[in-house]
Amino acid sequence: MGQSSRKWGVLVAAVVLPITGFAQAPKAAAQQWRTAHAQQILQEFNGLLSIPNVASDINNIRRNVDTLVAALERRHVAAKLLAANGANPVVYGEIKTPGAKHTIVFYAHYDGQPVTADEWEGRAPFTPATRMINGEPRIYARSASDDKAAILAQLTALDALQASQIPIKANLRFVWEGEEEAGSTNLGKVLEKYHDLLGGDVWLICDGPVDQSGRQSVVFGARGVTRLEITVYGPNRELHSGHYGNWAPNPAMMLAHLLAGMKDQTGHVLVPHFYDGVVPLSELEKQAMADAPQNEEQLRQEFGLGHTDGGGKNLLELLNEPSLNIDGMSSARTGAKSNNVIPSTAVVDIDLRLVKGLDWKTQQQRVVNYIESQGYFVADASPDKAVLITHPMVAFVRRDAGYNAVRTPMDLPIARQVIAAVASARGPVVKLPTMGGSVPLEVIEQALGTHTITVPIANYDNNQHSANENIRVQNLWDGIETMAALEAME
Amino acid sequence: MGQSSRKWGVLVAAVVLPITGFAQAPKAAAQQWRTAHAQQILQEFNGLLSIPNVASDINNIRRNVDTLVAALERRHVAAKLLAANGANPVVYGEIKTPGAKHTIVFYAHYDGQPVTADEWEGRAPFTPATRMINGEPRIYARSASDDKAAILAQLTALDALQASQIPIKANLRFVWEGEEEAGSTNLGKVLEKYHDLLGGDVWLICDGPVDQSGRQSVVFGARGVTRLEITVYGPNRELHSGHYGNWAPNPAMMLAHLLAGMKDQTGHVLVPHFYDGVVPLSELEKQAMADAPQNEEQLRQEFGLGHTDGGGKNLLELLNEPSLNIDGMSSARTGAKSNNVIPSTAVVDIDLRLVKGLDWKTQQQRVVNYIESQGYFVADASPDKAVLITHPMVAFVRRDAGYNAVRTPMDLPIARQVIAAVASARGPVVKLPTMGGSVPLEVIEQALGTHTITVPIANYDNNQHSANENIRVQNLWDGIETMAALEAME
Repeated sequence: MGQSSRKWGVLVAAVVLPITGFAQAPKAAAQQWRTAHAQQILQEFNGLLSIPNVASDINNIRRNVDTLVAALERRHVAAKLLAANGANPVVYGEIKTPGAKHTIVFYAHYDGQPVTADEWEGRAPFTPATRMINGEPRIYARSASDDKAAILAQLTALDALQASQIPIKANLRFVWEGEEEAGSTNLGKVLEKYHDLLGGDVWLICDGPVDQSGRQSVVFGARGVTRLEITVYGPNRELHSGHYGNWAPNPAMMLAHLLAGMKDQTGHVLVPHFYDGVVPLSELEKQAMADAPQNEEQLRQEFGLGHTDGGGKNLLELLNEPSLNIDGMSSARTGAKSNNVIPSTAVVDIDLRLVKGLDWKTQQQRVVNYIESQGYFVADASPDKAVLITHPMVAFVRRDAGYNAVRTPMDLPIARQVIAAVASARGPVVKLPTMGGSVPLEVIEQALGTHTITVPIANYDNNQHSANENIRVQNLWDGIETMAALEAME
Repeated sequence: MGQSSRKWGVLVAAVVLPITGFAQAPKAAAQQWRTAHAQQILQEFNGLLSIPNVASDINNIRRNVDTLVAALERRHVAAKLLAANGANPVVYGEIKTPGAKHTIVFYAHYDGQPVTADEWEGRAPFTPATRMINGEPRIYARSASDDKAAILAQLTALDALQASQIPIKANLRFVWEGEEEAGSTNLGKVLEKYHDLLGGDVWLICDGPVDQSGRQSVVFGARGVTRLEITVYGPNRELHSGHYGNWAPNPAMMLAHLLAGMKDQTGHVLVPHFYDGVVPLSELEKQAMADAPQNEEQLRQEFGLGHTDGGGKNLLELLNEPSLNIDGMSSARTGAKSNNVIPSTAVVDIDLRLVKGLDWKTQQQRVVNYIESQGYFVADASPDKAVLITHPMVAFVRRDAGYNAVRTPMDLPIARQVIAAVASARGPVVKLPTMGGSVPLEVIEQALGTHTITVPIANYDNNQHSANENIRVQNLWDGIETMAALEAME
């Protein structure tokens, strides 16, 4: 820590005491800095986005880590790597402030979702490209918004504060994870091992998109998530559909029956007990949701949707319910490669989103129980012929790890402080009890006894998790202002 | 015709008249020839299988054609190419026999199903490989059984007859199509244009597998076939399943509902009117089926099936019913490439098999009517955003061409003659009213007013239409005997 964090300590001493009255607002400092240094900021961002960051790509993960450590050290932030259990290391930075009342932890993740290069315009997800959308520039690359933008905003906000001699008043900690998109399976162990470094009054989760209206949101929780992959079986090799059609069972049709029984036509989940245990929203949370913008019609038009699920509930209400979503489905081949066969298997990947009160293992088991109730023998390994032949129907269910949802009360003192800081930079904020997406908040809260509050910066239409992920450059600029305000909190 | 067919004429004149009593049986002639020339026969076969033959691969189709023409001409069979409408040419060969009472037409096809090389052992579907299966050699390559084996058997049978000086008594015509696996869309035009060359007392369709018991089958019809591809739509780009799950409709789930409504759990098709118009089997046909081997339990074990469709009916009964089969299904990605997204589209390819009495266009329309009855607007072109947004649900249905089923009465004189010839080579035959697979018999019968009878030679477990297609070498030898007996028919 010593050497590299000293500069911030000196700054605190030099600035806070004699010239507090002249200190600029963090928002103005951020604006001034990014206006004067736009090119330099984007250059650093492009450099970061040019390093592939799928969690399993160890060599490139290491390159990300080295780059981030150097970025912290250039800003005189003490950096170290926190690793446990063979995990991709957490990049950790710390600014210790003498006499600080609070410790604020800034969380983000530097890994990104897997990519299928052919699906991207330009076929190069790690070659950042700037394109004009509706007259505004956006930067396209994997992790442009999810979640390297947050890291860059946090780093750049430090530059801005320092340039304007705005003091850091709290202890600041930066925690940048390298396995979030791979399920954060080792984060718990890292938090346990480095417990003393990682605690704080609040963890600010800088991930996800702001409200679709464009207004800055502060989110007090996130849905949990887990995944299942279900494989069902027809003949042990593809059969000619003419010679065996009507007799050999078709696994794609079996899967269709199985899936169709999981949800009704309005998207309501029919898996027994799926909604059991959900903790209802408080009056404060309900009021915050009622105050939030209603963006459904704008989104319906934008996404070209002829109808929406949910039986008339609005989007925010639906994000406070658990969900069962098909991520992908496949059996044999479609299109030009399709043959007249009875496929051998059919596979579906499903993600389950969880809200406060649900346990991810229980939720998985509810789906497994449903599959069994439909007459399937559920195997937890790829079944051999003996298993297949002795059960009328077999489903192999691969269960991924997961984590539960959390929801921080909106009326905690630290919650009110965060809202005020963000509002100072970005105006009235949209307060939401739950983000639809998932971050491993439960793991953090349990390990550290810390509250979490999510402050996203990305545009909602960022193609997160898909091809052509992007960030609107203006969201990056806004995000720097937001992070500056938070880094300057008491 | 003249020059090259003269040799057969001379042979007929020389042999039939003075030394009829010494003529060998075709079966013995075939056995003798293939025993003495096994290596040479397999070499010719390997050469043929080494030429890629997907119908759309025009350059390689031309190489197949050239090879087949040369093979006919080497045997002094007059060859020509019959082409219409830009189609891959039909390779045509003819042996005219003075004083012949009958004209027998041998049909086969030289094109093969599309290939996905990565799915093949050795990843080279056009590099024939010999492997021992259950102690017997098989040759692996695309079209090894479907349908180049039949072509090779017909050619080699000519060699055998000639070597044993067995006379050709009928006019023989060879018709080898190059677009059967692409739907035979131009065959009708070729038959019309070359009507006079192509007629006969019977077309022998040399395609498909023999009975699963290994016994030689003679099949008096084939199911018709047509295909549909159905695409349903969610958001116009993939959405993050956390931020929009429960609200944005999931096309994979929509497709599951749509498909699940098409069939019940026993495989019975629920599409309204699907079975309307089916012509019932005659008493003779029912008796033939009752006499046929029952192979269900053997097949169930072999294919590793825990249950079978059909509500207790046996395989042969079910092949005399129309079918609706999912050939392939896809939405976004599964497995390691899967992301937590709401997919943008879901696609299914379906084949419809038809039996006597059904019309393929009507059958397609019945499925389309069902889709509409489920609340879908059915588009016949890829829908734009305006179409998607103004209809609650949209399905784009691409309708392939197709053809109807046929069933030749088993008691026609020519049918009895064919049964007798095949039995002379292969013992008691399994007589089946309908082959489960499809060949464009309707097109042939309508254009030429000719009956069709199918005489398959491939082993039933040949992986036809899939990866690792193969022919058991013994089936090739047996097929040569069968073809020799048929080529020597009166």
